[in-house]
Amino acid sequence: MKIIRYLADSRVHYGLAEPEGRIERLAAAPWETLQPSGHIDDLSTVRLLTPIERPRVFGLGYNYRAHSQEVGKASPAIPVLFMKPSTAVIGPGDSIVYPSDGENIHFEGELTVVIGKQARHVSEQDALSYVLGYTCGNDVSDRVLQRRESEFGCLLAGKGYDTFAPIGPVIATDLDPSNLSIITRVNGAVRQDGNTADLVFSVAQIIAYLSKYMTLLPGDMIMTGTPAGVGPIKVGDTIDVEIEGIGVLSNNVIAAADMEP
Amino acid sequence: MKIIRYLADSRVHYGLAEPEGRIERLAAAPWETLQPSGHIDDLSTVRLLTPIERPRVFGLGYNYRAHSQEVGKASPAIPVLFMKPSTAVIGPGDSIVYPSDGENIHFEGELTVVIGKQARHVSEQDALSYVLGYTCGNDVSDRVLQRRESEFGCLLAGKGYDTFAPIGPVIATDLDPSNLSIITRVNGAVRQDGNTADLVFSVAQIIAYLSKYMTLLPGDMIMTGTPAGVGPIKVGDTIDVEIEGIGVLSNNVIAAADMEP
Repeated sequence: MKIIRYLADSRVHYGLAEPEGRIERLAAAPWETLQPSGHIDDLSTVRLLTPIERPRVFGLGYNYRAHSQEVGKASPAIPVLFMKPSTAVIGPGDSIVYPSDGENIHFEGELTVVIGKQARHVSEQDALSYVLGYTCGNDVSDRVLQRRESEFGCLLAGKGYDTFAPIGPVIATDLDPSNLSIITRVNGAVRQDGNTADLVFSVAQIIAYLSKYMTLLPGDMIMTGTPAGVGPIKVGDTIDVEIEGIGVLSNNVIAAADMEP
Repeated sequence: MKIIRYLADSRVHYGLAEPEGRIERLAAAPWETLQPSGHIDDLSTVRLLTPIERPRVFGLGYNYRAHSQEVGKASPAIPVLFMKPSTAVIGPGDSIVYPSDGENIHFEGELTVVIGKQARHVSEQDALSYVLGYTCGNDVSDRVLQRRESEFGCLLAGKGYDTFAPIGPVIATDLDPSNLSIITRVNGAVRQDGNTADLVFSVAQIIAYLSKYMTLLPGDMIMTGTPAGVGPIKVGDTIDVEIEGIGVLSNNVIAAADMEP
């Protein structure tokens, strides 16, 4: 199934994307029930939104060896994580805003896990049963700020600028996350061409690890780290993150001056 | 005013704590209105809760010079921040859970800001007008995990264990945050004795900085960093954080084995 969140008749709904642009509207949030409400919408007449409204977003650093090598880091012995604020999240087709004083802003295509059930102290074997599904994410990062914060062992502004977490377009269920092609294109040119088989810590290991420390909640998102090939974005670019079995998350880049006072 | 959140008649309410244990129940959340509902509760019959349910919590590192010196760090040129997950937040009187494999868990008493209005691109001069009030926070930290994550420039599990963010007991409004005594006691013995006059980045500077990058929302919490004197906690301890004009946040420490399967 492909779960979507969308705007129709000025209201927000969850639905299942079916063949031929047909949407089965859901009766409630997808972690409550996947029962259809009986109402059908037409994909061509709705606006797709990011699949979860203002989620908690956990991000992983250095979770593909080839990426760690390209930035000159060892692979960590434990999953190393940070949070991206909910206000950074945008949906498919929304614009990434390039900060007015931005110097070196990078794209990072990432397999993004959506938690479906409250999880605490879950084993690696059971971990995937707590997953609602998978979507595409772009962990947009300000390298200058990131470096300044990381010198002090923490990370927020470099990952947290409004619009720096494009997520979508659908939550694909029934997907094996251990062997998915993940490709990032900038203006159509392939920049990242990885596979989730190369994750240092697998999705199940990440969930088991996180749930050892904290309660994961339905709707939580985990961006699982980025493959090799990261690079800068600039105003006017279009960034596509495509993951096998999910689809394409596409966002353009606009200048902050276009929207800020 | 002192805004509280509390459980009475099995329901959660906001209220104003008045003299002689009288509570003026509020008609809605305090960032919507401070109008009383007309209902009066008795403080001795209610259970105080953490002032905001599952808030976003931003934390600052190295924001008192004397603390940076005690841990051998320079003072940062910019505010350096991280997030604590909402699931770490507990209220006054709740128990801090000591992880079963915890080795070196520290208390950190901190002035905690509560945002009252959506804020983006606000100036330092205007910043305090976006504050609802101030409360006490304890930024409980697992130093072993923190060090492991910080080597990779990020921070989550070391700050994010369930119960590692005691916050409360009240949101005090009409407070000047620039000169408040802040004291942390462990089992009654003073361990931190600081003053917010020694903040490297003031509350107004922090809000202006954060709002340059991200939209702050009503109910967001900012833990402003800890003064010198941090140290370990152990099972059985009681940790009090007392801030002038707010009150005392008191939490005991229990073993994880007491509550985990």
